[in-house]
Amino acid sequence: MPDKLFIMLDIKRYMSEKRAQVDVALDRYLPAETERPSTLHKAMRYSIFCGGKRLRPILCLASSESAGGSGDAAMLAAAALECLHTYTLIHDDLPSMDNDDLRRGQPTSHKVFGEANAILAGDSLLTLAFELLAQAPQGARLALELARSAGSRGVAGGQFEDLAAEGKKPDTALVEFIHVHKTAKLIQAACRMGGIAAGVNEAGLAALDRYGERIGLAFQVADDVLNATSTPETLGKAVGSDAIREKMTYVSLVGVEQARRVAAGMADEAIAALTHLPGATEPLAALARFIVDRDM
Amino acid sequence: MPDKLFIMLDIKRYMSEKRAQVDVALDRYLPAETERPSTLHKAMRYSIFCGGKRLRPILCLASSESAGGSGDAAMLAAAALECLHTYTLIHDDLPSMDNDDLRRGQPTSHKVFGEANAILAGDSLLTLAFELLAQAPQGARLALELARSAGSRGVAGGQFEDLAAEGKKPDTALVEFIHVHKTAKLIQAACRMGGIAAGVNEAGLAALDRYGERIGLAFQVADDVLNATSTPETLGKAVGSDAIREKMTYVSLVGVEQARRVAAGMADEAIAALTHLPGATEPLAALARFIVDRDM
Repeated sequence: MPDKLFIMLDIKRYMSEKRAQVDVALDRYLPAETERPSTLHKAMRYSIFCGGKRLRPILCLASSESAGGSGDAAMLAAAALECLHTYTLIHDDLPSMDNDDLRRGQPTSHKVFGEANAILAGDSLLTLAFELLAQAPQGARLALELARSAGSRGVAGGQFEDLAAEGKKPDTALVEFIHVHKTAKLIQAACRMGGIAAGVNEAGLAALDRYGERIGLAFQVADDVLNATSTPETLGKAVGSDAIREKMTYVSLVGVEQARRVAAGMADEAIAALTHLPGATEPLAALARFIVDRDM
Repeated sequence: MPDKLFIMLDIKRYMSEKRAQVDVALDRYLPAETERPSTLHKAMRYSIFCGGKRLRPILCLASSESAGGSGDAAMLAAAALECLHTYTLIHDDLPSMDNDDLRRGQPTSHKVFGEANAILAGDSLLTLAFELLAQAPQGARLALELARSAGSRGVAGGQFEDLAAEGKKPDTALVEFIHVHKTAKLIQAACRMGGIAAGVNEAGLAALDRYGERIGLAFQVADDVLNATSTPETLGKAVGSDAIREKMTYVSLVGVEQARRVAAGMADEAIAALTHLPGATEPLAALARFIVDRDM
């Protein structure tokens, strides 16, 4: 399939360019390490600049382009999304939560800075996300999107149910609740926020909403597959850890092959939703394929 | 001093009325305990409805009135301030932070719900604060005020330095940094946000800014005095705990009597700033006195 290969190469260059722009923005928006309290700002920067793929910011920027906006208009929202996502990773890794020592191949925040400082670094990144949005045009509307996807009805609620579900018998409805809340809602919000930053109309926002919902679910199913099949070197963390912890995953319900098929089908549905958008939708289509075909 | 006595009684009634209004609003804004994830929502409500004085919301509402606004216009901001404040209490009490078992005479969140759930309840309340502000008129401007006062340059930064300072030699500059960041900035933000919600002009905002800065500092100095002099029954938590932990406090620097005089002087300065405001400033003046004369 030469077409597919071409798209994969192309989207990797697109992602690499956008990631560099996002990193420049994050470096500008985060307090300097020299600013007091220096260690707290070091901890915030440590986790932000720890090799993230910047998927949520890139989806936000690509969604903005698909709505006819310039990438720039959505950069505050993109940076806010990465601050929010990074806070969830720091807190999820804590000893009282998932108790992970490694993240992206590096020691987790609490291993480097201690538990109290890791909690405060996460709190500060969560707060910074809203400080950035407050400075964007459409700031209140963007903040409402992010808060709804992140709070007890979003990511935090999903993490709660994920912790509560460990060791329980796998159950389709519960796995879906966890996937939707812990992962899909924030990815969906990233797409919606890009559109909102670009001043998208209602039909366009509905398209981005559907696209984001489908790739959000596809991303988590693909993640479950990777956890079951990848190597620690590629993944930057222990593999098979979901099974060891008896975490409820899609793979534990239907097996690896069926999970792969489901994820690919979701990507198709996401791409089919990309109508009624006035700008370039090729990056979003390629991102949907990347999300289910990636190896990390 | 009959005048002073009259003001104290009057302000207690004022506070009691406002507190009841704030509690009605919080009850409406917080997710129901029956809503999934039920235990997470229970944990959020447990700490919110655990006997708080609602000082920050009341200052916000009184500041709104002083700027000629109706109390109602500022209610979203008032509720957001209490969600933010409560999140800081839950996280400060955690085993890896201050490791407190009691707060307002009740077991702390992590004692009741476990550490992971206490962290998530705090995270969710922090997020809810911005969700509420995003729905207010002036939402982006209010969110900017709250985020700046709460993040690594505000409350979280103050808590970081407070933890780092335990056991160190008392130092005036460090005590002031901790007081300003951990306590004063959020109280100051409460006053500014009330003004902003009421559409205050620049001179009025400057007055509220100065008033808030002075009572914010006075509050923390008075708090240090109470910790050194009160009884556990009155305070709802262990007394003398600052001294036992070798926490850096104003009392440890200058003693109880001088600290009392300093706090009273700050209240005077706060009241003197209440000019250029088009609405009723009597509640704010009485609140300044209450803050330094309170016994809990």
